[in-house]
Amino acid sequence: MTDREVLDTILTRAASPWMDGSGRLSDVVLSSRVRLARNLKDVPFPHLLRGDDAKEVMFRIRKAIDSVNGKGAWGLLHFVDLEDLTHLDRMVLVEKHLISPQHAQPGAGKGLAFREDEVLDIMINEEDHIRLQCLYSGLELEEAWVAASGMDDLLEEVLPFAYSDRLGYLTACPTNAGTGLRASVMVHLAGLSMAGQVGRVLTAVNKVGLVVRGLYGEGTEGQGNVFQISNQITLGQTEKEIIDNLSTVAQQVVSEEKRMRETLLRSNRQEVEDRVWRSMGILTNARALTSKEAMKLWSDVRMGVDMGIIPNLTVKQINEVMVMSRPHFVQKVSGREMPPSERDTKRAELIRHHLSTKSR
Amino acid sequence: MTDREVLDTILTRAASPWMDGSGRLSDVVLSSRVRLARNLKDVPFPHLLRGDDAKEVMFRIRKAIDSVNGKGAWGLLHFVDLEDLTHLDRMVLVEKHLISPQHAQPGAGKGLAFREDEVLDIMINEEDHIRLQCLYSGLELEEAWVAASGMDDLLEEVLPFAYSDRLGYLTACPTNAGTGLRASVMVHLAGLSMAGQVGRVLTAVNKVGLVVRGLYGEGTEGQGNVFQISNQITLGQTEKEIIDNLSTVAQQVVSEEKRMRETLLRSNRQEVEDRVWRSMGILTNARALTSKEAMKLWSDVRMGVDMGIIPNLTVKQINEVMVMSRPHFVQKVSGREMPPSERDTKRAELIRHHLSTKSR
Repeated sequence: MTDREVLDTILTRAASPWMDGSGRLSDVVLSSRVRLARNLKDVPFPHLLRGDDAKEVMFRIRKAIDSVNGKGAWGLLHFVDLEDLTHLDRMVLVEKHLISPQHAQPGAGKGLAFREDEVLDIMINEEDHIRLQCLYSGLELEEAWVAASGMDDLLEEVLPFAYSDRLGYLTACPTNAGTGLRASVMVHLAGLSMAGQVGRVLTAVNKVGLVVRGLYGEGTEGQGNVFQISNQITLGQTEKEIIDNLSTVAQQVVSEEKRMRETLLRSNRQEVEDRVWRSMGILTNARALTSKEAMKLWSDVRMGVDMGIIPNLTVKQINEVMVMSRPHFVQKVSGREMPPSERDTKRAELIRHHLSTKSR
Repeated sequence: MTDREVLDTILTRAASPWMDGSGRLSDVVLSSRVRLARNLKDVPFPHLLRGDDAKEVMFRIRKAIDSVNGKGAWGLLHFVDLEDLTHLDRMVLVEKHLISPQHAQPGAGKGLAFREDEVLDIMINEEDHIRLQCLYSGLELEEAWVAASGMDDLLEEVLPFAYSDRLGYLTACPTNAGTGLRASVMVHLAGLSMAGQVGRVLTAVNKVGLVVRGLYGEGTEGQGNVFQISNQITLGQTEKEIIDNLSTVAQQVVSEEKRMRETLLRSNRQEVEDRVWRSMGILTNARALTSKEAMKLWSDVRMGVDMGIIPNLTVKQINEVMVMSRPHFVQKVSGREMPPSERDTKRAELIRHHLSTKSR
């Protein structure tokens, strides 16, 4: 398969291996992500690069990647120049968490190196020259860190990174300097949300210096009761400290969520089951679903699967509904752009067929 | 089978032959009913009868029925003394439209003669000594009238009815005097209701001298968008005029409803399909359903079946959900009385199992 063919496979499949429901505490933690920001020494940061210079940087990084490609345990990377992609394709990459919304903006010299299993990828000329990220299912920050760090070591052998003994890795935005590490976990807090307790818990998370965002970063707060918790500080702590700290807080959040789910089942089993099954009924029967409603229903059903209320449906199957709820993915698999109302119809159809062959 | 066994069969089945979806215009007209009020000459009306006297009257009428039982085309009547039934059983008879709420009240000398197929029955010592009714699926007032009248003729041969040449049949309440005939149709006005037009149509019906009530008479207005239209006047018109008049008005209402359904499909097909399927989804998945919500969902699904949106589900099957939505029927088939919340759970279970084996 060519790089483009591999990409097309990724763009049209709802399943991402890192969303397969495996990994520790995966009934609450959807995924763990580790991202490293790196820049080339003696080259202006991307926002200061003009077209051809940006392309030159991309070419140089790509060559470096090629030179180490397939080495170690880090698998084979494919490559795509984002200028060769349509707007729709780039937006699907955002929806699949492979690139950032910023990286999807038009511009020269933006590249993406990616593994077929979507677990590891490298954005070239995003805010920094290199943004390397690893995604794992469940609470597996250390695994993700080991993978990202291993790939980073390989690259460091062939690329001169901007590094200061005093500050550590230098980055376009000072908030990333130092380790250049942003670690995050996506947690599904349906129980706390049902009990009206999610605000309290997330405020506490904020107080210990971590940042809480929605499924797709800022502005998507809590769609489907999914929250992303990440470290604020990249400087003055070691990578291990950052990962350990986030991991500890995530485990506390998971405990609170699980305790709440148990409480709900103990005191309101009837009501919880009714809500879960109603959402399942609507998700598998509606003829039109907005993105927002699909995620709301997804949240109930996903919790129902985790609680054992809905049998015959795997976490992997229901997680695919998250991707199907996204507007650009729906259009991509339909093969064309559509107005919102048509998308809602198509989304309902996709989800219905996906779930009806597998459930009940 | 003994009379009691036949009754138990009726009390525990959701299906009533007169609700099988047959008959003319049965996509809007659920059923037609003709009821005749008759009284014995020289005997006080029921509300003036004391215990033993009421029993005496019941015994006399029962003997008369027995003497003509099985004659003509009117089938075999079974008999039950309502005092031998539990409160729950009597309420199920009300829910199945076989007796009136008034007849279900405790009291001596109240009887019921009924056919196994629930199409014809006779309440003894309700408001009048005899209340003979026939129920048919669809708009079949004439058929119902012919059946009721035939049975009435048989009874008149063996019982002396209170009759005045000037007034016609005499009844406990003067509003029933004359023909003693109350004809009614049950119409399902889901389309008009969806378009907010049901009030306008029913006001027009009122203006031509007909009465509009809910599914179970006064106080149940419009549950499931089902309305009962009946004649107000029993005096000064012939039976044929009463039946023809009601039939004509019913056909006009049906036309308006059908026109509205066509308009909805033409201009809002997507939205109608979505609503119908969502209701189907909730009806087949919810773990708790109140009577009221079940009827609301029933209304959407029944219209969906009529419109061809939901295949693989017959009118008969969905009509059974109407009976399953009733509180006493749910308790009867469960074999015991239950608090409301438990009923809601049991109701959801009944409906879910009923529909899941047959639909999709």
